[in-house]
Amino acid sequence: MTGPADGPGTTPRPALDLNADLGEGFGRWRLTDDDALLSVVTSANIACGFHAGDPSTMRRVCERAVELGVRIGAQVSYRDLAGFGRRAMDVPPDELADEITYQIGALRVFAQAAGADVAYVKPHGALYNRTVTDAAQAAAVVAGISGAGGALPVLGLPGSLLHEAAGRAGLPVVTEAFADRAYTAAGTLVSRREPGSVITDPDAVVTRSVRIARASAVLALTGEEVAVEARSLCLHGDTPGAAQLARRVRDGLEAAGVRIEAFA
Amino acid sequence: MTGPADGPGTTPRPALDLNADLGEGFGRWRLTDDDALLSVVTSANIACGFHAGDPSTMRRVCERAVELGVRIGAQVSYRDLAGFGRRAMDVPPDELADEITYQIGALRVFAQAAGADVAYVKPHGALYNRTVTDAAQAAAVVAGISGAGGALPVLGLPGSLLHEAAGRAGLPVVTEAFADRAYTAAGTLVSRREPGSVITDPDAVVTRSVRIARASAVLALTGEEVAVEARSLCLHGDTPGAAQLARRVRDGLEAAGVRIEAFA
Amino acid sequence: MTGPADGPGTTPRPALDLNADLGEGFGRWRLTDDDALLSVVTSANIACGFHAGDPSTMRRVCERAVELGVRIGAQVSYRDLAGFGRRAMDVPPDELADEITYQIGALRVFAQAAGADVAYVKPHGALYNRTVTDAAQAAAVVAGISGAGGALPVLGLPGSLLHEAAGRAGLPVVTEAFADRAYTAAGTLVSRREPGSVITDPDAVVTRSVRIARASAVLALTGEEVAVEARSLCLHGDTPGAAQLARRVRDGLEAAGVRIEAFA
Amino acid sequence: MTGPADGPGTTPRPALDLNADLGEGFGRWRLTDDDALLSVVTSANIACGFHAGDPSTMRRVCERAVELGVRIGAQVSYRDLAGFGRRAMDVPPDELADEITYQIGALRVFAQAAGADVAYVKPHGALYNRTVTDAAQAAAVVAGISGAGGALPVLGLPGSLLHEAAGRAGLPVVTEAFADRAYTAAGTLVSRREPGSVITDPDAVVTRSVRIARASAVLALTGEEVAVEARSLCLHGDTPGAAQLARRVRDGLEAAGVRIEAFA
Repeated sequence: MTGPADGPGTTPRPALDLNADLGEGFGRWRLTDDDALLSVVTSANIACGFHAGDPSTMRRVCERAVELGVRIGAQVSYRDLAGFGRRAMDVPPDELADEITYQIGALRVFAQAAGADVAYVKPHGALYNRTVTDAAQAAAVVAGISGAGGALPVLGLPGSLLHEAAGRAGLPVVTEAFADRAYTAAGTLVSRREPGSVITDPDAVVTRSVRIARASAVLALTGEEVAVEARSLCLHGDTPGAAQLARRVRDGLEAAGVRIEAFA
Repeated sequence: MTGPADGPGTTPRPALDLNADLGEGFGRWRLTDDDALLSVVTSANIACGFHAGDPSTMRRVCERAVELGVRIGAQVSYRDLAGFGRRAMDVPPDELADEITYQIGALRVFAQAAGADVAYVKPHGALYNRTVTDAAQAAAVVAGISGAGGALPVLGLPGSLLHEAAGRAGLPVVTEAFADRAYTAAGTLVSRREPGSVITDPDAVVTRSVRIARASAVLALTGEEVAVEARSLCLHGDTPGAAQLARRVRDGLEAAGVRIEAFA
Repeated sequence: MTGPADGPGTTPRPALDLNADLGEGFGRWRLTDDDALLSVVTSANIACGFHAGDPSTMRRVCERAVELGVRIGAQVSYRDLAGFGRRAMDVPPDELADEITYQIGALRVFAQAAGADVAYVKPHGALYNRTVTDAAQAAAVVAGISGAGGALPVLGLPGSLLHEAAGRAGLPVVTEAFADRAYTAAGTLVSRREPGSVITDPDAVVTRSVRIARASAVLALTGEEVAVEARSLCLHGDTPGAAQLARRVRDGLEAAGVRIEAFA
Repeated sequence: MTGPADGPGTTPRPALDLNADLGEGFGRWRLTDDDALLSVVTSANIACGFHAGDPSTMRRVCERAVELGVRIGAQVSYRDLAGFGRRAMDVPPDELADEITYQIGALRVFAQAAGADVAYVKPHGALYNRTVTDAAQAAAVVAGISGAGGALPVLGLPGSLLHEAAGRAGLPVVTEAFADRAYTAAGTLVSRREPGSVITDPDAVVTRSVRIARASAVLALTGEEVAVEARSLCLHGDTPGAAQLARRVRDGLEAAGVRIEAFA
């Protein structure tokens, strides 16, 4: 990971990818400030139509991402527009795998039309959370990604069953962390339902981002220092002020000497 | 179109493609007898999820089609599961184009996983009928097909605005006829709402099929002989006994010396 | 429950309601033989549009049910057309309650237009199974039923948390049993994934039906006699030959002296 | 319509209903500022789930409307979440009627749970526009409204075929006008695609509103004075600043002596 600017004897500057969920409108409804976030991130998790994302939005976000040199990732989900993919579903593994493949294919045609390709996959919402611990669904998601061809990298939580299954199937895994979410002493995320689970102070988010990038660590909600391995940092894009916060995080990281760079 | 078996001085045997709509179930619901029809046709118009067709069905039909050497076509539609794509919709052209591209991409990933690719496109239901005469929607469908790359052939009605638009955009066009539908003296289809519009007698359907293949002609409902240019013959698959009728048509065509062969 | 035909000193004939899932098509797709089943059952669980059931089907089944004197029940489900409501979903209780209310309201307008009303509620598929043991979802379904007004009876499994919650909320409960499903020695249903879980021999189904009605008992898969309390018997309608089997069960019950009668 | 404040010999103050489209979010997506608009309008056109509107939103808007004494209307639509009901659809009349009935029933259960009832019906978007001139769809919508019972008033454009059909079917009709839309000299709305079709200057909108209320007239885009009969004024709620503009219109109307009052 040593870049060309690193001289002999120096410690290589850490490199960090920045990813955000984009294209999460549907038809008349808009949610994410796609243009503003695309000017900040290096990887765009683009909704594929199952929890959000209509064809015209997918095309537009792909085109803009390619213009700005941002990587295109398939943000795959349960089929649940009404619940925005936030409701875990007991989808039989075979069906789930095919639903994942379908979504990747649907995004790929727009990515290719824009001159790029789908470069990685990240599950959304309830599917993301479920595949941390559910071996059958984790395997199904990996089967669906494999079914789409191209040995696409899987962006996810370090230690998740999703990453285990991806590794077994020969898919590259990319770890991510969350600068605006509280961690437990065990290194897992504090549930959104608990107080203090979401960090809203911009300075704190920036400080945590830099610490994740430089020291691979965060301060847990209970005060302990916790190791957090992350090649990518997830920035949230669906709240008011999200784009501004994302910009501040990127500026803070760069000021601290962190190279912002998409994963290979 | 002369095959290797045609000796010198003989008239080349006509070649005819047989296409049918397949994979038109959705989840728990089944409609078409996909396996039976795949053993008859040379081109499979596979539903892509907008009027019918779930991911698992798409995968399964693609796999079986490849096993049997049947061509895979994207049967694209308005987004209308509730109406099975049979209700014409005033979709803005830009949106419609993107919806077509999306569907082709979604099918392509399964076609490629099965070892083939999407080989052509055919609009379904109300979109098929509308693009015969609606220039804006015809152009939008063609734009959507072009957006998917690969210069895919467009299967449709001879003389349709869809075919005109495809030709202008440099897409190959493939003509088709319907042996089980009555024609007017002008060579257009008699509306399904009129008596006699659908021919149900198997022998009559076989006779008409052979005539279309050998003489490029059908007898109109009003008795005139009408010229019907067709490189492909559409067999319907969504009625009881459809697979048996399709088999009889194929057998009748072969007995009459017609080569059954997918279009190039 | 003694009918007028029971003379002095005789044991009252048992009364049994027969219910079946109806109207489970969607648009172009048909599933249940609604007309045939409506001539057999006394209670129709009509799909309300979330797992199946389009407005025209709902109207038609309601009208026919009223003509034949069959009770109309709302067969409520998770919102999951693609999965036919068979995939358990972690729907937040407030949302789930509102989704239940919505479905009852949508069916009620057709029931009232036909001259009747929604007379009871029965959850479908995964929601039925989940609310046997999930207290939060059971309470949500009951809240949704209460929200629709009319203190509608809840048809379900004896001992289910759904029935417990309904009882606490002051809703009447109606117990049901399944003559074509194997029971464990504990009186619960054997999972469909296990061998022998579904009884397909018509004579066996009839025998079990009569035994449930007359002796409130079934033979468990492991041979023990198990007590099964049931005011209603569920007949399945979505398999080939379902209507014929349902008719045989009804005839067998009547021949055995069981009164077929909707619950009060 | 003379109010108690009108003295002998005075001209009765005109009364005007104010209506707006509300509850037009879906799941995670919000669109209309429901609470702000409910404090301005007298009639709430609530989305019923076909172009927008999920069950929880429907319940919440109904409850709040009842608290504030606002009338509840069913804003019925084509089934088209992806197109927000803005794409005209050739729905067969029987299906369309049943879809309308379904939506009214679904809203009614929430209106009744909140202590009120559905008090009127207004078609949304493309269905509104189509039923101005399409006799078959106008009749279908009226059939669907009649099917829901209660002889609900139909809010719409004066002279529309929808109003003609409603009149023939014995349903009350309520006329409406648009203060922020340009009119032609013939009294119809200028298409949104033409320049000047939407009036965005708040003062101009207020002035036009008062003129509609007091003089039943608007100035056409081409300068002529045009007669516009309107018992209700439609305020748009889906644009930024919509709630503020709606408040200004109401204040302006009241300052000009117009009584703001729901139709009977």
